Amino acid sequence: MPMTYDEFRQLNLRLDMSRGKPAPEQLDLSRALIDDAAAAGYLSPGGVDCRNYGHGAGLPEMRAFGAELLGVPATQVVAAGNSSLELMHDALAFAMLHGVPADTDGAEAGRPKPWSKPDDVAFLCPVPGYDRHFAICESLGVRMIAVPMEDDGPDLDFVEAQLRRDSAIRGMWCVPLYSNPTGAIWSAEKVRRLAALPAAADFRLFWDDAYRFHHLTATRHATPDVLAACADAGHPDRALVFASLSKVTIAGGAVAFLASSPRNVAWWTRQMAIRTIGPDKLNQLRHLRFLPDRAALEALMERHRALIQPKFAAVQETFRDLLGDTPDVSWNAPAGGYFISLYVPKGFAKRTVELAAQAGLVLTPAGAAFPHGRDPHDSHLRIAPTFPSLDEVRLAAQGIALSVLRAMEEARVGARVGV
Amino acid sequence: MPMTYDEFRQLNLRLDMSRGKPAPEQLDLSRALIDDAAAAGYLSPGGVDCRNYGHGAGLPEMRAFGAELLGVPATQVVAAGNSSLELMHDALAFAMLHGVPADTDGAEAGRPKPWSKPDDVAFLCPVPGYDRHFAICESLGVRMIAVPMEDDGPDLDFVEAQLRRDSAIRGMWCVPLYSNPTGAIWSAEKVRRLAALPAAADFRLFWDDAYRFHHLTATRHATPDVLAACADAGHPDRALVFASLSKVTIAGGAVAFLASSPRNVAWWTRQMAIRTIGPDKLNQLRHLRFLPDRAALEALMERHRALIQPKFAAVQETFRDLLGDTPDVSWNAPAGGYFISLYVPKGFAKRTVELAAQAGLVLTPAGAAFPHGRDPHDSHLRIAPTFPSLDEVRLAAQGIALSVLRAMEEARVGARVGV
Repeated sequence: MPMTYDEFRQLNLRLDMSRGKPAPEQLDLSRALIDDAAAAGYLSPGGVDCRNYGHGAGLPEMRAFGAELLGVPATQVVAAGNSSLELMHDALAFAMLHGVPADTDGAEAGRPKPWSKPDDVAFLCPVPGYDRHFAICESLGVRMIAVPMEDDGPDLDFVEAQLRRDSAIRGMWCVPLYSNPTGAIWSAEKVRRLAALPAAADFRLFWDDAYRFHHLTATRHATPDVLAACADAGHPDRALVFASLSKVTIAGGAVAFLASSPRNVAWWTRQMAIRTIGPDKLNQLRHLRFLPDRAALEALMERHRALIQPKFAAVQETFRDLLGDTPDVSWNAPAGGYFISLYVPKGFAKRTVELAAQAGLVLTPAGAAFPHGRDPHDSHLRIAPTFPSLDEVRLAAQGIALSVLRAMEEARVGARVGV
Repeated sequence: MPMTYDEFRQLNLRLDMSRGKPAPEQLDLSRALIDDAAAAGYLSPGGVDCRNYGHGAGLPEMRAFGAELLGVPATQVVAAGNSSLELMHDALAFAMLHGVPADTDGAEAGRPKPWSKPDDVAFLCPVPGYDRHFAICESLGVRMIAVPMEDDGPDLDFVEAQLRRDSAIRGMWCVPLYSNPTGAIWSAEKVRRLAALPAAADFRLFWDDAYRFHHLTATRHATPDVLAACADAGHPDRALVFASLSKVTIAGGAVAFLASSPRNVAWWTRQMAIRTIGPDKLNQLRHLRFLPDRAALEALMERHRALIQPKFAAVQETFRDLLGDTPDVSWNAPAGGYFISLYVPKGFAKRTVELAAQAGLVLTPAGAAFPHGRDPHDSHLRIAPTFPSLDEVRLAAQGIALSVLRAMEEARVGARVGV
């Protein structure tokens, strides 16, 4: 006999399922990064004193490691600081301020035109999507065009039509593998079509490969190399690829990568040379020692999977038990990434989050996965099961399901009494 | 009998005196930051797991340490990543994109106006100054107005006249202590006058307190608290203070600070929350262990002084020996900081740098200390004596002096033969 919402509420829990943060046990997997930091020393294999200024594009060995991970030449990889989000923000800010190289005007870029002039700049935003992507657009005054998501990626007929009729479109957010938060794996066909679509010369795919190594099943899914696809389609500068070791090693203290065409990398490093004296190379050196090759990284990701897969399974099981027969309620079973999307009947997402909050569960605000935080159907909830313990996740999933059911019950009672 | 330029050239040296980089021996002073990294662990004294995301304004204990160093409340300090240069760049970029709170419109900011709209934005740039400041302005399309420097800071009559007649002025670069590269210590009177000058409501002093702890003599010079001075003058939001531990501990892997009014700090953290998941708190934790208080930092700076003061003295002595009787040649004897300014007769700086390069000495390009790299008199050279060894510095100073003399001799010969 399952609990009722009121019984759940009386447990007086305090659980946070709002953000995709790794659990302490996951961070413990990289204890050696801290415990053996001294052994990494300060001299890179190539003889760079990692303590001093310089190497704005990152330690050469770390660029080479990024190249191995991302399948591109090391010269096309920048190894940066602790946050790929800031690379995305800065890429968009640089584009607004300075423009980007336009890829159809021959071997050499013309004078790039700042995206902020004229005023209207638009981005294609597959929804539901990543709230922090949308927050960057909102902050920089970029108009957001919601793009419907399908199981294998965004609706590209829609994208193509938008590109044809709206000349202000300059970019598109893409999380190609285990999309945040729908878990979609973008198909090879869609990736190739995106690379080839007619678009402005300075149109850019902001390719956030956040979950490239973050599998939840034994299958290591992968999406096609977007840089190669763009080059093949005659748009070598179209994609900016972002990746990060944050959810591999230490969430707030890892290494982020940018990979792109030689021309885009030159553009990036030119801007960055103005901005900074270079990334923290000592942290890159520590990471190189801890993760000597891709196999080491994949072995580590297996250990992450062992810790978080049961949490995802617990949510699935609990939802199946409590919500399996509820009409208009569904959720996805992602094969990777950090999120589960839960769809409740239209108009019930906000109320569910409120009821959950009253029962001590902090959820991502309803609508967060949509531009400006507005879900037109008020039906999507993003569940982040990684941070709490397995027992807590099980309880929290129960609480979420009971909150959904209570919200629907309130509506039925309201309808009966004519509220 | 001193060497001749030709003899010096035959030594086939390779010496770099171009950038203000710490020497390896200076970096060795902070070996414990690397060797004892494990001992710092990952839990802050206040119980924060420094491995995870969050704390965008920095670890509370690091903000408190910054507050102790800068003499302001911890709530007014942001502890950031490894580069104060990037804080300055981002502050200017944020201002261009979003505007800054305007400080005369009451307790609450009006809607800030982006500096980039309308197009013309100007900065006051004391010269000679820091080339990287000017590069930021150039990159962001900010018009630079050169301001003459005096021994105790910029010419404020000139500044006041500019502010009165040029409404596009939005900010001013300031290196108040041991100015880069003139070594000036700005007087209390000038600091107070700058705080009080009539200017636009969104006018900002970019106060780069880069050498706050970098004394070359036994006297720990200090300039007045600019935030207090601005508040006293009724312009609480006028100054953005930047500081860094880069030349205290590890050049490329230390901690940078921003300090300002509560309103500016709120503005900054609001923008930064969009951009990043927070700074590397593990590095902040390591620093807190290595530098538990201001006294520890000051003791460390004494050890830096012991290493670099002899290098500055060697330059002084060599210049005195070789250039002491040369008309129109002068240089400063800074009481702190990282640079010596050498003034050669008008029109001789570029040629001196060329001759030095031919003799294997890499100097900062002539003109680098001026907006767009153009020294109107072609007479200023920036000497950075910290990085090479003491013997190398002595040799390099000789080479520089001999290059100056050779340049002047060439001109005399040229004049005689009518070239």
